[in-house]
Amino acid sequence: MSAMGDLLAHAAQTAALEQVTGRLHWDQETMMPKGAAAQRAEEIAAMEGVLHARRTDPALGELLETAQAETDFEASSLRLISRSYQRATKIPARLAAELARTASLAHGVWAKARAEDDVAGFLPVLEQLITLRREEAACLSGETRGAALYDALLNDYEPEMRASEIAALFDAMRPRLVALRAAILEKPMPAAISGDFDEAAQLALTREIALAFGYDLDKGRIDLAVHPFSSGSGSDSRITTRVARDDPFNALYSTIHEVGHACYEQNINPLYHLTALGQGASMGVHESQSRIYENQLGRSLPFVTWLYGQMQTAFGGLSTDSPAALYAAINRVAKGYIRTEADEVQYNLHIMLRFDLEQALISGDLAVGDLEGAWNDRFMADFGFAVDRPSHGVLQDVHWSAGLFGYFPTYALGNVYAGCLMQALRADVLNLDAALAQGNPRPATDWLRERLQRHGSLKPPRQTIEDAIGGPVSPEPLLRYLEEKFGALYGL
Amino acid sequence: MSAMGDLLAHAAQTAALEQVTGRLHWDQETMMPKGAAAQRAEEIAAMEGVLHARRTDPALGELLETAQAETDFEASSLRLISRSYQRATKIPARLAAELARTASLAHGVWAKARAEDDVAGFLPVLEQLITLRREEAACLSGETRGAALYDALLNDYEPEMRASEIAALFDAMRPRLVALRAAILEKPMPAAISGDFDEAAQLALTREIALAFGYDLDKGRIDLAVHPFSSGSGSDSRITTRVARDDPFNALYSTIHEVGHACYEQNINPLYHLTALGQGASMGVHESQSRIYENQLGRSLPFVTWLYGQMQTAFGGLSTDSPAALYAAINRVAKGYIRTEADEVQYNLHIMLRFDLEQALISGDLAVGDLEGAWNDRFMADFGFAVDRPSHGVLQDVHWSAGLFGYFPTYALGNVYAGCLMQALRADVLNLDAALAQGNPRPATDWLRERLQRHGSLKPPRQTIEDAIGGPVSPEPLLRYLEEKFGALYGL
Repeated sequence: MSAMGDLLAHAAQTAALEQVTGRLHWDQETMMPKGAAAQRAEEIAAMEGVLHARRTDPALGELLETAQAETDFEASSLRLISRSYQRATKIPARLAAELARTASLAHGVWAKARAEDDVAGFLPVLEQLITLRREEAACLSGETRGAALYDALLNDYEPEMRASEIAALFDAMRPRLVALRAAILEKPMPAAISGDFDEAAQLALTREIALAFGYDLDKGRIDLAVHPFSSGSGSDSRITTRVARDDPFNALYSTIHEVGHACYEQNINPLYHLTALGQGASMGVHESQSRIYENQLGRSLPFVTWLYGQMQTAFGGLSTDSPAALYAAINRVAKGYIRTEADEVQYNLHIMLRFDLEQALISGDLAVGDLEGAWNDRFMADFGFAVDRPSHGVLQDVHWSAGLFGYFPTYALGNVYAGCLMQALRADVLNLDAALAQGNPRPATDWLRERLQRHGSLKPPRQTIEDAIGGPVSPEPLLRYLEEKFGALYGL
Repeated sequence: MSAMGDLLAHAAQTAALEQVTGRLHWDQETMMPKGAAAQRAEEIAAMEGVLHARRTDPALGELLETAQAETDFEASSLRLISRSYQRATKIPARLAAELARTASLAHGVWAKARAEDDVAGFLPVLEQLITLRREEAACLSGETRGAALYDALLNDYEPEMRASEIAALFDAMRPRLVALRAAILEKPMPAAISGDFDEAAQLALTREIALAFGYDLDKGRIDLAVHPFSSGSGSDSRITTRVARDDPFNALYSTIHEVGHACYEQNINPLYHLTALGQGASMGVHESQSRIYENQLGRSLPFVTWLYGQMQTAFGGLSTDSPAALYAAINRVAKGYIRTEADEVQYNLHIMLRFDLEQALISGDLAVGDLEGAWNDRFMADFGFAVDRPSHGVLQDVHWSAGLFGYFPTYALGNVYAGCLMQALRADVLNLDAALAQGNPRPATDWLRERLQRHGSLKPPRQTIEDAIGGPVSPEPLLRYLEEKFGALYGL
């Protein structure tokens, strides 16, 4: 029986005893002989003693606490199941299946088009996906045009968030990111790491670091895939990675990133597994975990200092001669086409480009046939050099081929949330740097588990973050973190 | 099994099927042969079909609705049981029993003192009760002085209400009530009803009217008592009445009043009986029901017009010759000492007097020995004539002898709430007057049951009223009702 059931049974008995006392009072006013007053006072005092003991029963205090947790769980389940039901009943079954089928097929079409730098080969299926998602957005929003369409899609990934809020956030971030990049690019560029890194050694080190970050391989797997991703939840939370012989950081940091996602899923309260609460609160909150694991922790000076020794051992030496040089190489800000390879400073600028273009695609302001040109123009304006080929431009990302319009901005939200979390974490966890310098991120991941991950979808996304950081969300901590970190690195 | 249990089981199966789809996606990215893409698209579309059917299952819509009601019930139970637990654990068992014993004994002491007009005989036990209640208030509030003490006691009867809010309400009402009374008292006073009214006939008519108002005698009783009261709840909701041979309105209107209380208890959702929700939301809300039954309905012109015929039949004639004269007699505004006999215009002024005096008793600003003088001075100031004996003054009410400090203002709140309810009821229930003119208040009592009574303590008091009236609480409807009714009656 549930605590709520026990609590209600306890309350029912108390209510029955209160009624008994009520009968004594009724009797006193209607039937009782006058001379019985003193005895009645004792009877009522005795009943009050029984009632007071019941009302203050310590077991009641414990039941109340457990029942409150049960109620929170049920209220959140109701909210989420209801939202899913409201959403699903607006979508015809035909459209739901057609979207799933088209997205599945489009994946192969896009992969081929990207491999062949063949934009035209991808556009027909992209057009289909946009048509289907616009139709879906119209079903969801009840509108056929305007901002409501994109907001309806965004809502799938970041509930309760509007594009206008994200645009305001991006407007606040852009000038400081652009200024920081400009200042960095005027400085000499640190040397990159070069060499030939044994794949087995890379995978062994990667696996060791995944475990250090708390990934439980008893409830997960690490496999190879073209694009790293995480999949599943609860006790089957898997990740994939990829290995490049000339770039050990590809496997390493994509793994730490996916470990952030997978640990979030693994660390959700086991009672929530296979319930509506048993997943991350939103894509933005999810991304905050992968980002803080990868960047704020994994690319920090103390952790990289520890990593320097590990890499020397694993690969029998390195092309750089100090932890500081490795740190500079890992946090190198360089011109580049590819979002997934972007440094922390430029990453959000890649997102802003996609956010604006996909809103225009959904609103119909941008025709699919004009997408490549729009991308290339915008890239030149934002990054100052020309896209050399479609696989470095409009074809680089898998998302639109999966119909994921409204997903990209959650990456930038994740960065903002990670900035807020890191500020709160630093205030709470002293000696964090000392632990990281020993290759031990557990003080941080324990904090994240307790403050955020274990709650799953118990609370709405914004509340999930705000409760974890103890205040409102702001881009300021992320911007300050970037300005301080890269200011120190580049002597700004 | 509960709807919530069914809902969670349904959601768990959906979540499991979503995980199955997740495995297909994982496989597609890691292990699937390239040539399987088209078949995989069909597999995923088929799974999406299964999922969409589950997510839009009409049974899910019904479960959601029922589970929402269960959750509301549980959340309210938790709130109320938790409040009771928090309250009770602050009170030592000794104090709880001592209060119950003293209040029980004090009842007889007060009754004797009132019968003998012997203030001094009552003061020692009153002093004890004040000391015990102050001690209780200090336990509850954590304060030893100031407004928090009285607020802690008020909170027992009207949760979430503060004395300062009530004082502001009274300040807004007083000038218009005083002005209305002054204008009325300058006019000729209507004749009262006189005669000798057979007690059995009175009780028979009273019983018939109780049934007309919806009182269920299968789950209640009407007995004789010195002071009319209601007792019990749910399927044992009793009332008492009293009969005076020279005043048939004493039995009649005290019965309609108590029927309002008892119908509220009887009409609460049967699922709430013997639970924390199975009582009226507060004393103020409770009083709104007794008041609207007694005054806005029972003392209305159409109902009194019907009553005129009934009384002529029951008593073989009346000392007045028209329904209009009976209506004027029943709504006569006259000088008087006694709160329970006060007309609608002056009633709240009696409450304001008690509200101020009892706050002073609890704060310690007024010593028990000075209470009678304070009462008499204040009565002279408020009513313009002197109290002639204690049983017409400070000894008239039973409440303080029961330790009920903080209870009186809920009567005036009940009047204010009744004013709001009557305004909303009139807007919703057309032909109300036609039904009342046939001795049928059921359109009104049905509306009150549906809009308010059935919810019991599901919602906090203010929300209970606001949901019923569809807006915020204000004294304006009551004041306008009084000014219109008595303006018309007295030709103001």
